[in-house]
Amino acid sequence: MTTIAPTDPKLGIKLRAAVDGLAKPPGALGRVEDIAVRLGLIQNTLKPTARCARLMVFAGDHGLTAEGVSRYPAAVTLAMVQTFLAGRASANAFANAVDADIQVIDAGIAQALPDHPNYVQAALRRGTRNAAVEPALTGDEVQTALSRGAALAQEAKGFDILVMGEMGIGNTASAALLMHALTGIPLHLCVGRGAGQDDAGLAHKLAVLQRTAARAPVKDPLAALSEFGGCEIAMMAGAMLGAASVRRAVIVDGFISTAAALAAARLTPAVLDYCFFAHRSAESGHGLMLDALQAKPLLELDMRLGEGTGGLLAVPLLRAAARLLSDVISLEEVLKSGS
Amino acid sequence: MTTIAPTDPKLGIKLRAAVDGLAKPPGALGRVEDIAVRLGLIQNTLKPTARCARLMVFAGDHGLTAEGVSRYPAAVTLAMVQTFLAGRASANAFANAVDADIQVIDAGIAQALPDHPNYVQAALRRGTRNAAVEPALTGDEVQTALSRGAALAQEAKGFDILVMGEMGIGNTASAALLMHALTGIPLHLCVGRGAGQDDAGLAHKLAVLQRTAARAPVKDPLAALSEFGGCEIAMMAGAMLGAASVRRAVIVDGFISTAAALAAARLTPAVLDYCFFAHRSAESGHGLMLDALQAKPLLELDMRLGEGTGGLLAVPLLRAAARLLSDVISLEEVLKSGS
Repeated sequence: MTTIAPTDPKLGIKLRAAVDGLAKPPGALGRVEDIAVRLGLIQNTLKPTARCARLMVFAGDHGLTAEGVSRYPAAVTLAMVQTFLAGRASANAFANAVDADIQVIDAGIAQALPDHPNYVQAALRRGTRNAAVEPALTGDEVQTALSRGAALAQEAKGFDILVMGEMGIGNTASAALLMHALTGIPLHLCVGRGAGQDDAGLAHKLAVLQRTAARAPVKDPLAALSEFGGCEIAMMAGAMLGAASVRRAVIVDGFISTAAALAAARLTPAVLDYCFFAHRSAESGHGLMLDALQAKPLLELDMRLGEGTGGLLAVPLLRAAARLLSDVISLEEVLKSGS
Repeated sequence: MTTIAPTDPKLGIKLRAAVDGLAKPPGALGRVEDIAVRLGLIQNTLKPTARCARLMVFAGDHGLTAEGVSRYPAAVTLAMVQTFLAGRASANAFANAVDADIQVIDAGIAQALPDHPNYVQAALRRGTRNAAVEPALTGDEVQTALSRGAALAQEAKGFDILVMGEMGIGNTASAALLMHALTGIPLHLCVGRGAGQDDAGLAHKLAVLQRTAARAPVKDPLAALSEFGGCEIAMMAGAMLGAASVRRAVIVDGFISTAAALAAARLTPAVLDYCFFAHRSAESGHGLMLDALQAKPLLELDMRLGEGTGGLLAVPLLRAAARLLSDVISLEEVLKSGS
């Protein structure tokens, strides 16, 4: 089990004073100052570090794709996982650019892959059941996903930052269903074009998801993860809880990662003290889901790929924020040296 | 003299096709795809690189500070330059975070400093004249600033990216005057709180600048740089022109750097093909100045420090974009390997 300590408001006051006392006009670094305070709270220190970062890409397949909710065939999940392991996906490019490690977690893709140093075999099952007709996962499978995800995050000892990414054809459908179930926002505002549905595809996707939501009108996070999946979303929610339990900073990527954060927050609200929301995705429901979490994303670059690509671009902002508290001279020191 | 080649629209079409052909849904990386195309155009290649980055911090003092336009005493310019050289300013922290080099250029601070490996002695004069009563710089001084700045950028051979930053107490006043002169936007919309003016300070600053603008109702970029300065703004404008002349990517920081880009663009419009605008600063006139340049900034983090801090945070976005074109497999290759 994971226990998450709420962050310490008294330390928050000290951190804000430390940031305000640096050799610059108070507030002049805007949101980067807020990141610095948050990082100190997460690590429970006045001198946080944000050096080593790992992208955890949770991958899984979705039985719901049998209903034609995605523009791409389900086999693309496996092909993209192979591409991650070959180092040739967008997430690899961005990880190279920001000097981050990549770990690809098989949470439940359609078939297992051979061993690879960056690949973790943690599949719950080979793809979820079709949520349009039955629960995607059993209650036990959800619990297993949460505990495996938590363990993976807790084991990532050398990393200051864990970026949460995903790959799973059909997973914007699961994420939209989770968003609807856990926030009550009307489903048509939760459903978007995913990897590129046209108008007809979007209308079909909405019809399928309306039927699915009507089959299982749940509001509880465990029930919603069971009804709608996916393997990768449930395991990512567990990883967020596990990361927070060991005071590790979490960077949430886009629409699907935010759905995982939403589920995690409904289980243990304190997890949000440990999360940075990287960007506002171009997927249409993302802004409303962020609002429901009272989360203000750091970037807005019209991205909608997933894989953790948006999350990776936020890593340098955390590094810059941590460096403020370690590298920059205080006004007090300047005045002393001048006297 | 600097000659700037316009970028090649035919290459732009090829670059867009290359980005669209990568193993991801077309457009799914949003503005990062646009950065990749722009970088390729700048370097005139289908495989741009964005590895080594240098922050050039142009520093100068302003005679206009005698009129009380800044909340901080002019001596802070020198103190902050010493802090850069000691590696203890916010710009150093951010440069460390994104792995960028720093070069501090004395364009005209009040007194010279001893030699230092990161310090370039290029002062036009020891601070500008008081623009409220006479031209800040002579026409010859402006020409010298432009050519010295251009030479510094052209000499920075090992760097793919030049980030333009500045330090100069009073330089939001010069930048506001340049903005007003070169865009015609009413002065009260150009003037902001700078490093932290209160309401009374802001009203006083506006009154001084109204008097200054009325003394010298110029519209020409060379005349405006001469009337309003500063040394660091003119030299930075030269560096932007010089960087573009050798096909180097320029990252423009905040309000003052954008004023330099505006002056450079009025001299040679093609320079804008080589510029990325890093962020929308919290300084009130910045948004309108960006609009006047039809520039859409990459980040919006409520920052208003200058020093190049905002520019440095955009460096990883350029690196990620370049990596897309070098590291990511194309759909064509995926299909071949699958057949």
